Amino acid sequence: MNKQDIINQIRAKKSFLCVGLDTDIKKIPQHLLSKKDPVFAFNKAIIDATAKYAIAFKPNTAFYEVYGSKGWLSLEKTINYIKEKYPEIFVIADAKRGDIGNTSANYARAFFETLKADAITVAPYMGVDSVEPFLGFDDKWVILLALTSNKGSKDFQYLNANRKTLYKNVILKSKEWADSEKMMYVVGATHPEELGEIRKMMPDSFLLVPGVGAQGGDLQAVAKFGLNKDCGLIVNSSRGIIYASNDKDFAKRAAEEAKKLQKQMASVL
Amino acid sequence: MNKQDIINQIRAKKSFLCVGLDTDIKKIPQHLLSKKDPVFAFNKAIIDATAKYAIAFKPNTAFYEVYGSKGWLSLEKTINYIKEKYPEIFVIADAKRGDIGNTSANYARAFFETLKADAITVAPYMGVDSVEPFLGFDDKWVILLALTSNKGSKDFQYLNANRKTLYKNVILKSKEWADSEKMMYVVGATHPEELGEIRKMMPDSFLLVPGVGAQGGDLQAVAKFGLNKDCGLIVNSSRGIIYASNDKDFAKRAAEEAKKLQKQMASVL
Repeated sequence: MNKQDIINQIRAKKSFLCVGLDTDIKKIPQHLLSKKDPVFAFNKAIIDATAKYAIAFKPNTAFYEVYGSKGWLSLEKTINYIKEKYPEIFVIADAKRGDIGNTSANYARAFFETLKADAITVAPYMGVDSVEPFLGFDDKWVILLALTSNKGSKDFQYLNANRKTLYKNVILKSKEWADSEKMMYVVGATHPEELGEIRKMMPDSFLLVPGVGAQGGDLQAVAKFGLNKDCGLIVNSSRGIIYASNDKDFAKRAAEEAKKLQKQMASVL
Repeated sequence: MNKQDIINQIRAKKSFLCVGLDTDIKKIPQHLLSKKDPVFAFNKAIIDATAKYAIAFKPNTAFYEVYGSKGWLSLEKTINYIKEKYPEIFVIADAKRGDIGNTSANYARAFFETLKADAITVAPYMGVDSVEPFLGFDDKWVILLALTSNKGSKDFQYLNANRKTLYKNVILKSKEWADSEKMMYVVGATHPEELGEIRKMMPDSFLLVPGVGAQGGDLQAVAKFGLNKDCGLIVNSSRGIIYASNDKDFAKRAAEEAKKLQKQMASVL
């Protein structure tokens, strides 16, 4: 999926919503537990209920790996289901991978070829050869961690080197590796003003913004500081949508929460 | 497995060798390809051939994820096999994970409970709450990336902040999170002098040292700068051992390479 495909979808749906599929078997409705693959059954219902409001789905690998090979099977089925039924939707594997070149090349094949995701989140600590192997695939994307939404983002990402924070060093260095047609950045919704500074540094890049909802980020502030001429934002909500109810109405309630966010997004676009 | 268990094994085997199970189906002997699970068949033979020379095995998750859920099944079988047949051997999941607290908690369960690894490599970029969830398990270990062996280690790990490199900031900050009974550090064999500086900063910590062999690191230099009173080193070799031959003698040849390294290790201990 290329940049124009993403922009077209944003325009058609008047949305820049990503639904995070952080599916936890302890939080899904009881009646699904008798299904053969409760995680996939839950995801399928959530996907069908929210696809018209969302431009992206983001399964987080941790929530599948916790069930081992069975969890990976649920993950494969989930991505296959999205790709078959909603081929226009952008699929982000939230995996935070990154290793020496030879290893990252295997991760790239794992996520882009075996799993058929469109994008993967990548951690920058190991530098150029940990990121480059992900860049050699047509219409596939690296989403590089820049400034994350969590408390620990303060430990290293704000360290000052070369008269700028580490996360700005990461963004500037990464410009040597890829442009806005191949790379996006993770910028937490919990840092709206820094989002504005990052937008100035990277006027054309898409930013994946987690942290709206359960983590306390505010959509209006994100839009104010982050929008560009193409929208340039993909805002993720996970828990606020997928666990809106843990009863039989869970999919309907998820759709309502997704629609609420989509309406707010339409009003700022 | 606790620190004393590791030290006891080093003394008994006169070795601090870790064999990296970076098993690539394109590099394993042809005759294994007809097996039901060629990756597991290869690993099993390598494990049996090298267990007496090695104190640790380190499967790298990328090489399993590239085959999707089937690959995860091979990984599960590999770790189960080691744990059943060689319970004294330290199993490191080389996974380079790290995410917000809620997600890292799921990765911790995935690797320590579902997969039953003793340790996991963790990337530090996201800070305290990305690492802490891995620290709440008895006799399980975090191996934090400090200074990696690859070319890209120069991009960010050497950035200077607070009058010291980023990797030293990572090490110092991480001392607030755990001591040498719960945390080890990845320090590439390709940086022997920095290894000496890190040893001074962390006199009691075990260091996991990749990069000997295919990546060009030198065992003598690593020992000179890295040994402490308990040994304090776990030196990994992957390709140099497991792909010593790709013919029917592969396990025998792997054993010979492992034995060579073990003998060098015995001489420096």
